[in-house]
Amino acid sequence: MNIFLTGLMITMCFSGMGITQELYIKPFNIPDILNYKTLKCDFHIHTIFSDGKVWPDIRVYEAYKEDLDAIAITDHIEHRPFSNDVKSDHNRSYEIASVAGKETGITVIKAAEITHKMPPGHFNAIFLKDSNPLDTANYMAEIEIASNQGAFIFWNHPSYPHPENKELWSDVHQLIFDNGWMHGIEIVNSKYYYPKAHQWCLDKGLTMIGNSDIHPPITFDYDFQKGEHRPMTLIFAEENNKKSIRNALDSQRTAVIWNGNLIGKETYLKNIFKNSISIDHSDTIVDFINQNTAFIKIKNNSSISYHLKLLGAPQHIDAPKNLTLKANNISVLVVKANNNSQTPTQTAGLDYQITNLWLSPSERLNIKIPLLVLTDQTN
Amino acid sequence: MNIFLTGLMITMCFSGMGITQELYIKPFNIPDILNYKTLKCDFHIHTIFSDGKVWPDIRVYEAYKEDLDAIAITDHIEHRPFSNDVKSDHNRSYEIASVAGKETGITVIKAAEITHKMPPGHFNAIFLKDSNPLDTANYMAEIEIASNQGAFIFWNHPSYPHPENKELWSDVHQLIFDNGWMHGIEIVNSKYYYPKAHQWCLDKGLTMIGNSDIHPPITFDYDFQKGEHRPMTLIFAEENNKKSIRNALDSQRTAVIWNGNLIGKETYLKNIFKNSISIDHSDTIVDFINQNTAFIKIKNNSSISYHLKLLGAPQHIDAPKNLTLKANNISVLVVKANNNSQTPTQTAGLDYQITNLWLSPSERLNIKIPLLVLTDQTN
Amino acid sequence: MNIFLTGLMITMCFSGMGITQELYIKPFNIPDILNYKTLKCDFHIHTIFSDGKVWPDIRVYEAYKEDLDAIAITDHIEHRPFSNDVKSDHNRSYEIASVAGKETGITVIKAAEITHKMPPGHFNAIFLKDSNPLDTANYMAEIEIASNQGAFIFWNHPSYPHPENKELWSDVHQLIFDNGWMHGIEIVNSKYYYPKAHQWCLDKGLTMIGNSDIHPPITFDYDFQKGEHRPMTLIFAEENNKKSIRNALDSQRTAVIWNGNLIGKETYLKNIFKNSISIDHSDTIVDFINQNTAFIKIKNNSSISYHLKLLGAPQHIDAPKNLTLKANNISVLVVKANNNSQTPTQTAGLDYQITNLWLSPSERLNIKIPLLVLTDQTN
Amino acid sequence: MNIFLTGLMITMCFSGMGITQELYIKPFNIPDILNYKTLKCDFHIHTIFSDGKVWPDIRVYEAYKEDLDAIAITDHIEHRPFSNDVKSDHNRSYEIASVAGKETGITVIKAAEITHKMPPGHFNAIFLKDSNPLDTANYMAEIEIASNQGAFIFWNHPSYPHPENKELWSDVHQLIFDNGWMHGIEIVNSKYYYPKAHQWCLDKGLTMIGNSDIHPPITFDYDFQKGEHRPMTLIFAEENNKKSIRNALDSQRTAVIWNGNLIGKETYLKNIFKNSISIDHSDTIVDFINQNTAFIKIKNNSSISYHLKLLGAPQHIDAPKNLTLKANNISVLVVKANNNSQTPTQTAGLDYQITNLWLSPSERLNIKIPLLVLTDQTN
Repeated sequence: MNIFLTGLMITMCFSGMGITQELYIKPFNIPDILNYKTLKCDFHIHTIFSDGKVWPDIRVYEAYKEDLDAIAITDHIEHRPFSNDVKSDHNRSYEIASVAGKETGITVIKAAEITHKMPPGHFNAIFLKDSNPLDTANYMAEIEIASNQGAFIFWNHPSYPHPENKELWSDVHQLIFDNGWMHGIEIVNSKYYYPKAHQWCLDKGLTMIGNSDIHPPITFDYDFQKGEHRPMTLIFAEENNKKSIRNALDSQRTAVIWNGNLIGKETYLKNIFKNSISIDHSDTIVDFINQNTAFIKIKNNSSISYHLKLLGAPQHIDAPKNLTLKANNISVLVVKANNNSQTPTQTAGLDYQITNLWLSPSERLNIKIPLLVLTDQTN
Repeated sequence: MNIFLTGLMITMCFSGMGITQELYIKPFNIPDILNYKTLKCDFHIHTIFSDGKVWPDIRVYEAYKEDLDAIAITDHIEHRPFSNDVKSDHNRSYEIASVAGKETGITVIKAAEITHKMPPGHFNAIFLKDSNPLDTANYMAEIEIASNQGAFIFWNHPSYPHPENKELWSDVHQLIFDNGWMHGIEIVNSKYYYPKAHQWCLDKGLTMIGNSDIHPPITFDYDFQKGEHRPMTLIFAEENNKKSIRNALDSQRTAVIWNGNLIGKETYLKNIFKNSISIDHSDTIVDFINQNTAFIKIKNNSSISYHLKLLGAPQHIDAPKNLTLKANNISVLVVKANNNSQTPTQTAGLDYQITNLWLSPSERLNIKIPLLVLTDQTN
Repeated sequence: MNIFLTGLMITMCFSGMGITQELYIKPFNIPDILNYKTLKCDFHIHTIFSDGKVWPDIRVYEAYKEDLDAIAITDHIEHRPFSNDVKSDHNRSYEIASVAGKETGITVIKAAEITHKMPPGHFNAIFLKDSNPLDTANYMAEIEIASNQGAFIFWNHPSYPHPENKELWSDVHQLIFDNGWMHGIEIVNSKYYYPKAHQWCLDKGLTMIGNSDIHPPITFDYDFQKGEHRPMTLIFAEENNKKSIRNALDSQRTAVIWNGNLIGKETYLKNIFKNSISIDHSDTIVDFINQNTAFIKIKNNSSISYHLKLLGAPQHIDAPKNLTLKANNISVLVVKANNNSQTPTQTAGLDYQITNLWLSPSERLNIKIPLLVLTDQTN
Repeated sequence: MNIFLTGLMITMCFSGMGITQELYIKPFNIPDILNYKTLKCDFHIHTIFSDGKVWPDIRVYEAYKEDLDAIAITDHIEHRPFSNDVKSDHNRSYEIASVAGKETGITVIKAAEITHKMPPGHFNAIFLKDSNPLDTANYMAEIEIASNQGAFIFWNHPSYPHPENKELWSDVHQLIFDNGWMHGIEIVNSKYYYPKAHQWCLDKGLTMIGNSDIHPPITFDYDFQKGEHRPMTLIFAEENNKKSIRNALDSQRTAVIWNGNLIGKETYLKNIFKNSISIDHSDTIVDFINQNTAFIKIKNNSSISYHLKLLGAPQHIDAPKNLTLKANNISVLVVKANNNSQTPTQTAGLDYQITNLWLSPSERLNIKIPLLVLTDQTN
C-alpha cells in the first residue's frame, strides 16, 4: 500500500462505486506585497533522524496541511539520542522529505543544525550541498564547511539554554559574524521571542528568522482549529523556488510571524496590513447631521487579527480605545459625535497603533483610518 | 439609554478606563461579477406589525450582522393577528426600520404583503410609496394600487398553502401577468424551492426571487455558526442604493441563493464560480514522469461550497468522482496516472458538473479544470 | 400555520415521506446539590410590551433553548416607549408567555418592573397576582400593592443610572427594607456586578439575584457557541415549580452565575464544585520512585470552567501556579518532584483558590486536591 | 530538555513568574455498564519500528489525548520497510512506549503483527512476553510461539488485501481456529467494517475487535474537533489493568465503536444506551388536554450520537420518523396529537430502532420511549 496516501488521507466517502479521498486545507492568508509573493516558511524542523518524533515525509505533509510553502529539515549533526535505533547518515532525512516535497509542491531545502553549547550555541545551515562533512567535533570547522558549501547560516534560539531574555553576543559570535558566517538570527523560536536578537538584526543588517523548532507531531504544539500556527519566516520572493527564497534571505526580505504578531521592517508590515484590509469608501462618510452614531465596516481578508489602540481622534468624536480587526472577519468601528452643539471637523482621521505589528522591540506600526465627516457646516 | 446600542452590542471589554463595544460580522462572500456589485437581499420579512415576532429595527440589525445589503419589510396588509395589541398603520414598520437602515448602511425598501387565499395567493409589493391605501378588501384592487405606485410586484411561495410541489398557474395569475402586474416570482421561500415557478421565470421572462419570509428572530431558523444562511435574492447592481436595486430587478439581473445552492442564469453563475476560485498555474502542471500522483490546490474564496461531480477525465487519469470545493478553504484535487505503461495525453482537462449551481430545474453548470500533463512523450 | 412551530423550528430534513423537525439544546450543566435541584432562572426580561424588542413567547423559547428552567417577564409599568403602537395592559405579556411556558415546560412567573428614578431606582415584583393595579404614579404605593399581593420584591441594578460602582443605600431604601418590602437585590444585572450590593445581601440577609435585563433578542448579547450565557439566578429547589422557587427565594437558597463566575454562600459553591469534578483515585497516587513527573486527570462535568490559583504545595513538589479546569473537559494537572535527592512527604495535597467562585466581594473558595506520593521512603 | 514535555505541551501561559503548562482532553464519554468499567482500547498501532511514521511514545500520548485507556503497539515482524534506517529488535517499540504509559496511566500491552499474505493474512498477537522469537520465516510457527507465550491472537482486516467485502474463511483459518490459536477477529479495521467477520464472531464464539491500524500521526486520519475518533475495542473490565483487560478479551466482554456505530452483543449495547440517556419523568407526561403538542427533552450524556428511526407510534400521535439524540446534547422530541376529535390511548410508547447500534450485520437495537398521555378520558 502506498504509505503516502495513507498518510495524507483525511476523509473517505464510501459510495457503491468507489472511494473518494478529500483533503481540505484551511488557508493561512497573508497577502502578497510589493510585487513579491509572500511565502510561509519554517527553517527549523526535527525528525527521528535527530531528536524529533516523526518520519521526515510527515514534516512535509504537516507543512502542506498548514498552508506553508517551504521548509528545511534541520536535524542535529551532533545530537542524535536515537542513534542506537536510527542509523542513517545526515543526508537521509532530506532525501526522504524531498520526495514528499515533489508530490505536494512544498519546497524542501537541505539543511542541518550545528549543535554546540553556548557560546556560540546552535546554528542552522540551510542550502547545504552535503550534510555529512559537517560531522566533525569542531563547531567552528563545521560552520566554515557549511559556509564553503554556500549555506545560509543563522544563529538559533540565541537565549539558549535559557528559554528567553538571556541573549548574549559573545566574542565567539563576533568572530563568526566577522568571518561572514552569520547571515541571520532566529528572533523567534517556538514559543519564544528574543528582543535583543531582534535589535541585533536591525543594527547589524542580519536577516530576521522565525521558526518552530518542532520535535513532536505539529498538532501536539499548535491547535489549528483555534487559529494557532507555528512561528514562521515570511519570505517576500519572486517565485516559490529555492533560488528566489535564497535571494530573499540574502536581501533580508523577510518578516516573522509569531503568536499572532508580525515582526519586520515598516515597509513590509505596512503593505501587509494595507493589502489585508478593505473599507468601503461610502462607509467612511460619517453623517453627523442626521444621526450621532456611524458604523464603519472594516474587512480583514487576512488570517492575522490586527489589534488597534487609539492614539488620537478628532475633537468631538468618540472612537473605541481598542479595536481588534479580526482575521477573516468584518469588524465594525462605531464612531459617535460626542457633543451635538459643536460639530467635528469635516475631514478627519482616527490614529491607531497596531500593537501586534512590531518594527523593533519597542516600536509598533501606526496607521490612520480616514473619515469624511458630514456636519451642519458641511452644507 | 439608547436602545439601539443595547441591541447591537455584542461584546463589552471592561477596562479601568472605559468600555469598548465590539461587533464582528462573519463575511458572507459572494464575488462581484461583470462590473456589478453582488448585493445580498431579502425582500420578504415580517415584524410584530403583522405576524412576525420582533420589532422592525431588529430586522435591520439581523441583516447587518448576516452581511446583507438590502431588505424589505413586508408586513401583511390583511393578516395582523396581534392587532388587538399592536395598533399602528401599514407604514409604521418601515418608518422604524428605515432609521436603523441609515445607521447601519442597510438599504431598507418600503413594502407590503398582499394576502389572499389561492388563487392568486400572496404577493409582495416592494418600492411602495404608501402602504395604507392598499388596505382594501379587494386583492386585485390592491395589486393595481401597488402597480400605480410604481411597485415591483412578485408572487410569493407559489405552492401555498402546500409547502412545496403544488405550484399552479391559474387564470387569475394569467390576468395579473397580462396586466403587467407580476414582475417576478419567489422560486425560493424559506425552506422551499419551487421548480415549476423556476421554469415559469425562464419561460415568461419573470425575475427570480428568493426570500426568507422570516417570522421569529432569524437565529431561530438559521445557525450562522454552521454556515447556514437565510435564502437571499442576489442583485447584480451598479451600487447599493434603491435605484440600482430596482434597475437590476427590472432587468432580471438576479440570482437566488438557497440552502447552499445558487440558482440563476448561466452568465451569472459561471462568473460567480470563476471569481470564487483560484488555482496556481504551476499546480496544474502534472508531472507524471517522476511520480504517479499529483496534488492540485483549488482555493475557494467565496462562502459557497461548490459540489463537483466528475463527467469525464482523460484516458489513464484517475480523478475523484466527487469533489467539494469547500467555502473559504483550499481543496486538494488528487489526480493519478492509472496505467504506468501508457501515458496520458499531454493537454487534458477534467470535466465536472457543479451540482449546486442550477440553470433550470434540471440543468446544472458544467466546468472544465485544465491540466498540463508532463509525460515521457513530452520530452 | 402554527406560529410557534415556525418559531422554534431549527432544522428541517427533507425526505420523500415527510418532514422531521429537529431541535437540539446545548446543555448548560450545573450540578444539583444538597438534595435540591439546581434551577437556572432569569427574573428580569423585557418584551415589546415595555421597551424590549421581541414578542413575549420568544422569551420562553429563548430560555428553553438556553437550557433555563424558569423566567419572569418584567415589563416596566411606567416606561412603555412603544405605547403609541402597543396598547395592551400590564398582564398581557405574561398571558402570552405562559402559553409557551406550558408547551415547553419552562416555569413562567408573573411579574412587573416598578420604574422610578433613583432613589429608589427600579424594583422587580415577581409572583404578582395582577400587574394592572400597580399602574399608579406613586412608586411607594406600587411597592406596597405588590407586597400586599404577596410578591417577592428585589431592587434592580442598584448602581443605576451609572452602570457600575455607584451603589448607594439611601433613606428610601432603608424605609422599603424596614417595611419588609425588599427581599433581595440584583448583585448582577446584564454585564455588571455590584460588589456593595453583594455585601448588603450578606449583611442584611437579602436574597442574591442575578438577571439578564434583556431587551433585544438574546443572541444579540450572548454568543452561546462561545459558551457565553446570560447572567442567571440559580435556585436550589425541591422541584421546578412556582412554589418551590418561591420557597427557595424566601430562604435565600440562591446563587448567581455571571460571566463565568459563581457568586453565593460557601455551602452552595463548595457543593457545586464538588459535584462538578471527578478524579480517578488511582490518578492521585503519584509515583515519584520510578518517575519524576505525574499526570492527574481532573474531569469537570459541569459547564462552568474553574480557574485555580496555587496557594501552596508540599515541599519538593512543583505544581502549576494557575490551572483552569475547563468546562466539560478533562484537565491534566502535571506535578513534578523538583528535587530528586530529597523526597516529598508521602501524604500531601495541593491548595488552590478558585478565583471565579466568590463568597463575598473579596473572598474566594479555597479547595485542596489530595495526593498520595510514593517515594523511596514509602517502601 | 525533557523531550516528553515538549511533546505533550499544548499551551503555555507566559507570566512574569514562570510558565504554566496546560493540557486539556476532550472527554470521549461511553458509560460504564453492568458493574464493569468501559475501557477504550486500540490494539493495532504501528510506529517507525515497522511501517508507521512516528516514534512509539507518541502513540501513547496520542491515545492519552484522545481519552483512551489502553493500547498495543503491533509493529510488523516481517514487514519493516525502514530497516535500512531503523535497526532495533522487535521488543524495542514496546520498551519505549511503556515508559510513556507509566507517566500517563495508559496501559501498554506488548504485541506484534504476524504478517503473511492471505491465507491466512495478518494476525496480531497481544500479551506477548518476547516478540523476538516470532521472527521466523514460518507464520504458523510464529502463531504457535505466540500462543505458547500465552498471547491473545486475532485475525486482522480479514478482507485483506481488498479493503472490504472479501472476507474468506479458508482451510488455513479453520486449522488455526481448531488449534485454539484464533481468539478474535477485527470486525473493524481503520475505515472498514467486515460483516462476514462480524457474523463469524457471533457463530464461532470469537471476540469482536476493532482497531485503527494507524500509520501516520493520528490527527492525519481523524479530526477530533469534528467529533471523529479512531475505531476502538470497548473492553468491559473490572479495572484498567492488563489482567482485567485480558480477562475481558477471553470472556468476549467487548464491543466495537466505529465511525459513530456501536457493534456488540445486545446486553452491552442496551446498557450503554440506557446509561447514556436521561429523560425527566415529568417531561414524559404528555398533556393533550390543554395543548396538542408536547416537547420531551432527551439528554444524551455520552459522546455517541444515537440515530433513531420510528418503528411505531400509538394511534393519533405523530412522532418524528427520524430523530438523532446528539452526543452531549439535549434533543427535543416533539410529539403531536394528530386528531383532536379522537384522543390517543393514555399509556403509550414510541418504538424506535437505533440504526447505529448493531447486534449483527443485519440486526439493530430496538427501544421504547414511554409516554403517559393525558387526555379528556383521563379525567
